[in-house]
Amino acid sequence: MSRPGKPSPTLDELTAALVAFRDARDWKQFHNLKDLLLSLSLEASEALELAQWKRAEDFERQARRGGGLHQRLREECADVLLYLLLIAEAADFDLARAAAEKIAANERKYPADKARGRADKYTEL
Amino acid sequence: MSRPGKPSPTLDELTAALVAFRDARDWKQFHNLKDLLLSLSLEASEALELAQWKRAEDFERQARRGGGLHQRLREECADVLLYLLLIAEAADFDLARAAAEKIAANERKYPADKARGRADKYTEL
Amino acid sequence: MSRPGKPSPTLDELTAALVAFRDARDWKQFHNLKDLLLSLSLEASEALELAQWKRAEDFERQARRGGGLHQRLREECADVLLYLLLIAEAADFDLARAAAEKIAANERKYPADKARGRADKYTEL
Amino acid sequence: MSRPGKPSPTLDELTAALVAFRDARDWKQFHNLKDLLLSLSLEASEALELAQWKRAEDFERQARRGGGLHQRLREECADVLLYLLLIAEAADFDLARAAAEKIAANERKYPADKARGRADKYTEL
Repeated sequence: MSRPGKPSPTLDELTAALVAFRDARDWKQFHNLKDLLLSLSLEASEALELAQWKRAEDFERQARRGGGLHQRLREECADVLLYLLLIAEAADFDLARAAAEKIAANERKYPADKARGRADKYTEL
Repeated sequence: MSRPGKPSPTLDELTAALVAFRDARDWKQFHNLKDLLLSLSLEASEALELAQWKRAEDFERQARRGGGLHQRLREECADVLLYLLLIAEAADFDLARAAAEKIAANERKYPADKARGRADKYTEL
Repeated sequence: MSRPGKPSPTLDELTAALVAFRDARDWKQFHNLKDLLLSLSLEASEALELAQWKRAEDFERQARRGGGLHQRLREECADVLLYLLLIAEAADFDLARAAAEKIAANERKYPADKARGRADKYTEL
Repeated sequence: MSRPGKPSPTLDELTAALVAFRDARDWKQFHNLKDLLLSLSLEASEALELAQWKRAEDFERQARRGGGLHQRLREECADVLLYLLLIAEAADFDLARAAAEKIAANERKYPADKARGRADKYTEL
């Protein structure tokens, strides 16, 4: 969530900064959609790697503390978002709107009264 | 990017909707950070799967056309964003700000004059 | 491990069966190394998905019991091995020998007396 | 494939060496199945990373040449196999036999006459 007194950039602003960064380096030639998706997956793995060999409770406590692990998690998640924005730009869709629609679809798929407290897939509810 | 005439939700609005969705189902108990990161990685893989066995140019053309593949890509990317938002909420950081800082860091790491047109890692520039 | 009374196929035998399967379908044209690695990663994610949202101890108990989860884990791991064999065949290396060399390298990197009972990376020992 | 004049280790021999390595370091305590699957996925991503930003044909040529990339690919694939063997040992199944059964199942799922030259999923044949 954004912090009081600190205006967070919007996704549009981030995309504009990212496109300027990319184009100043003439990197659009490498950014085909398949490699962007491959990179998205690699960055998500790097984020996951932070939790490797750690018990879930230990990791959660360390990641919250504001120490080195918190900072690394923040950076890896930022990398994932940057690739998402490049993908949305390349494939020409509105990522925030897509996410809002997905929340709405999940609300239909997982009715609160049936899904409460259960980790099952919606097909098993 | 957002579309003219259609206000896109902000990340804060998406996070609020997501937290309401989660809490109405009492799912916070499953959402420890390690499993959220694991899920982030799985969703990124599902997005990547759309490009499996496709030549990069063919995939790019199909994903742009506005057909079924475009819609599936949009949904998979939405899922990735939703997990990012849950992670940022659980670990208590501002995802948009983290992304802005990462762009700034990349600008220092990859000077435009050295990185132009090269896909090398910054350590190899 | 192999079972008494049941001869397990060797990696060479598996590779030969896999190449015959592939060539009977004229699929070598799709099996470029980049897509094989992409597929390896996707299959490993499908294996990991079996553990999503499960506590480590619960998953371990369920995966061992010989029920449906055990069978699915076995199949997903088989898929990962099949892609490894296709990659080794395409890039022309001996996978079993590579693994033996890696064990030997790990023995040097993680001296038993320093690494005992510690999950740290070797750089942190 | 194995090389003439060089006997390759069997999967049973590799598993025995790996278990001895693990137990000499008292690492079984970290090797719960969920973390082993997580590690399998991370290692597969590291293998995939070798192909990031490379055109499929360029990567294939470089990976075959016997240079540094070939060696790194070989090592990353070895890491994936080692985790597969640890998983099979922990969940108590015969990995080679599972792979042989999967090839047989794929032969039924993808009849050669229908699947020839097509990359479609079997459900779409």
